[in-house]
Amino acid sequence: MVRKDIIVLKFGGTSVGDIDKIKRVAERAIKSKNKGKGVVVVVSAMGDTTDSLIELAGAITQKPSRREMDMLVSTGEQISSALLAMTVQEKGCECVSLTGGQAGILTDRFYSNAKILNIKVDRIIKELKNDKIVVVAGFQGININGDITTLGRGGSDTTAVALASALKAKYCEIYTDVDGVYSTDPNMVKEAIKIESLSYDEMLELASYGAKVIHLRAVEFAKKHNVKLHIRSSFNDIEGTWVMDDFEKDMRMERPMITGVTYDVGEVKVSVFGLEDRPGIAADLFGRLAEKNINVDLIVQNVSEKNLAAISFTVKSEDMELAEKTINKIENINVEMDKDIAKVSIVGAGMQSHPGVAAKMFSLLAEKDINIEMISTSPIRISCVVKKSRVKEAIKALHSGFGLEK
Amino acid sequence: MVRKDIIVLKFGGTSVGDIDKIKRVAERAIKSKNKGKGVVVVVSAMGDTTDSLIELAGAITQKPSRREMDMLVSTGEQISSALLAMTVQEKGCECVSLTGGQAGILTDRFYSNAKILNIKVDRIIKELKNDKIVVVAGFQGININGDITTLGRGGSDTTAVALASALKAKYCEIYTDVDGVYSTDPNMVKEAIKIESLSYDEMLELASYGAKVIHLRAVEFAKKHNVKLHIRSSFNDIEGTWVMDDFEKDMRMERPMITGVTYDVGEVKVSVFGLEDRPGIAADLFGRLAEKNINVDLIVQNVSEKNLAAISFTVKSEDMELAEKTINKIENINVEMDKDIAKVSIVGAGMQSHPGVAAKMFSLLAEKDINIEMISTSPIRISCVVKKSRVKEAIKALHSGFGLEK
Repeated sequence: MVRKDIIVLKFGGTSVGDIDKIKRVAERAIKSKNKGKGVVVVVSAMGDTTDSLIELAGAITQKPSRREMDMLVSTGEQISSALLAMTVQEKGCECVSLTGGQAGILTDRFYSNAKILNIKVDRIIKELKNDKIVVVAGFQGININGDITTLGRGGSDTTAVALASALKAKYCEIYTDVDGVYSTDPNMVKEAIKIESLSYDEMLELASYGAKVIHLRAVEFAKKHNVKLHIRSSFNDIEGTWVMDDFEKDMRMERPMITGVTYDVGEVKVSVFGLEDRPGIAADLFGRLAEKNINVDLIVQNVSEKNLAAISFTVKSEDMELAEKTINKIENINVEMDKDIAKVSIVGAGMQSHPGVAAKMFSLLAEKDINIEMISTSPIRISCVVKKSRVKEAIKALHSGFGLEK
Repeated sequence: MVRKDIIVLKFGGTSVGDIDKIKRVAERAIKSKNKGKGVVVVVSAMGDTTDSLIELAGAITQKPSRREMDMLVSTGEQISSALLAMTVQEKGCECVSLTGGQAGILTDRFYSNAKILNIKVDRIIKELKNDKIVVVAGFQGININGDITTLGRGGSDTTAVALASALKAKYCEIYTDVDGVYSTDPNMVKEAIKIESLSYDEMLELASYGAKVIHLRAVEFAKKHNVKLHIRSSFNDIEGTWVMDDFEKDMRMERPMITGVTYDVGEVKVSVFGLEDRPGIAADLFGRLAEKNINVDLIVQNVSEKNLAAISFTVKSEDMELAEKTINKIENINVEMDKDIAKVSIVGAGMQSHPGVAAKMFSLLAEKDINIEMISTSPIRISCVVKKSRVKEAIKALHSGFGLEK
């Protein structure tokens, strides 16, 4: 038997939101199979199932055990995968649904935010050889004890990419409710254009708004294991956005200087004053935050005065309280939180060969009289923190200033 | 460590119908634990969850694969068990929920109607040793391939009894929405009284209406493995009905002649005319029905005329069509179906030592001018098939005639 190309298709919650939508997903899966592919479909829970389950738990306790939450919410994907399998079968095509555990997805022990350690693909391979479409419940796995774990929000993307990697799939298609990745948020700037292809690094940098399209962790996984991604709409047949190796992308198109403009209004600025200015202080501060699993983004250390340092950084809004509580355990310091901030970023692998991109960004913002409070850069991204009220203006100025509209 | 007595508590769908009810279940479980018991709780799905899931599948196909149905509906019990575990934890008591598979319940391969082959209790024992209340999702197990199977409707009772047996539990409490087993249906006869204790055989015979209280298969399992049952209400603390070994029951109370009057309106009478009157014909007929998994109840073979036999029997209403189709494959016969029938039975281990019980039953019915269409007997039961329209009258006459009211 010639081994078929395997492809992995992933459908999010809105794509399987009701029975009619599930029927469309089934048709798409069958179409791919009829083209001679081995088809593995990863599904999220239907629409707001997960939220309803979380709400049920919320009526019981404000601090449910993570193990029991995983036991609870993992049923959402089990339901949608069983329904999809039935739908495929009803259309005359053999199909089987598998929970994360049945699909061989072994994770670590961190309930609610588990990481995939290993995938035993024997069962999936066996079912594919039997000419079946295999539907896998996304977002979940089991740990070494056989207990159900979930991969955290957006974890279905990670399931799909990890399966694509383990199965050596030709590519992984992420079906979503948008046509692909845009040069910026079309809700903010109507001139936003769809990007044909992106490198993994660009996708990672764009993911601050791109998280709605594909989860950051999934892109990291795809990059590490070189899984080609195709982000596209589940409601039409239009070609979406390909995310692939930088080199392969270079072969296909001339590189523009800037690929996209992104923003994030979900962070707060934390300023810590009165830190002793000696080695190890920053390590202690961020060590305490890391211990509480608080991700820190932009960090700026101010010039030291009277031997005391001030450090500012941003954290996710939902981590604000925990961050404040954690930092306040350090003696003799003051903490200030600023919720009125937004982060605007320009992203593009092309900026590496175009000097002066940062200067251009700063002057485009200055022209609009927008004050920059913090700056951070990566080789392919420049981010500025501005007042939240100015974020739309900033995005428009950058999108147009860098010529992304044409 | 002294090994504690283990008890198994089973709560049906109405007992875990909403968060408030789940809280009451949690309190009951904790109360039992505080009395020094090792507590295992088996739960059904919340209220009409299972029906909602079946409805979802019904919107997709009229003939869903049984494997996928089990994958789908098993989520109902997983949800309720996770919610109960959270509730127990919220009340400050350690608890863990387990799916059927995690609880070690291994079944055969017959999806939707699987039988328990074996229970590996290691995991439950480990959790009990850690002083946890263990919540097990009822109604489900896994087969040798790790695929989810369900035990059929009422299967949570079987889960509870099977666990009680495997764990050598002291007894198994079946919590339901009635106070126990009654001498007849209180909705039919307001003078019905609660029975203090029953033998397994009596419970089995009563189960034609008793199915609402406990599933037949669970009683059979309890009898085979001598698991003492306590059927009681989840809404009060009143002592319910004990079901136990005949001998033990005899020690406790003087045996009444008749324990209860039951009825069943869910059957149809099938009459087959024109069968050749030779050995093997009945075996062929009922063999065909057994092959289709159709359970046959009362059987009456009429006197043979012109070397042709007629056989009447009853089957469950839902099997009527399949039965007709199956029988019609036999050549040269006629089939008649009669839906207008009901079965009335009197049950009591005491009747073995009281001759004339059958005669009394027939005359009580005759007094009311109720015609008897079919009769069947077991050592502790006599059943008569009557017109459906006369069933209430028949029950009242028997309940009062055998002195069950006092």
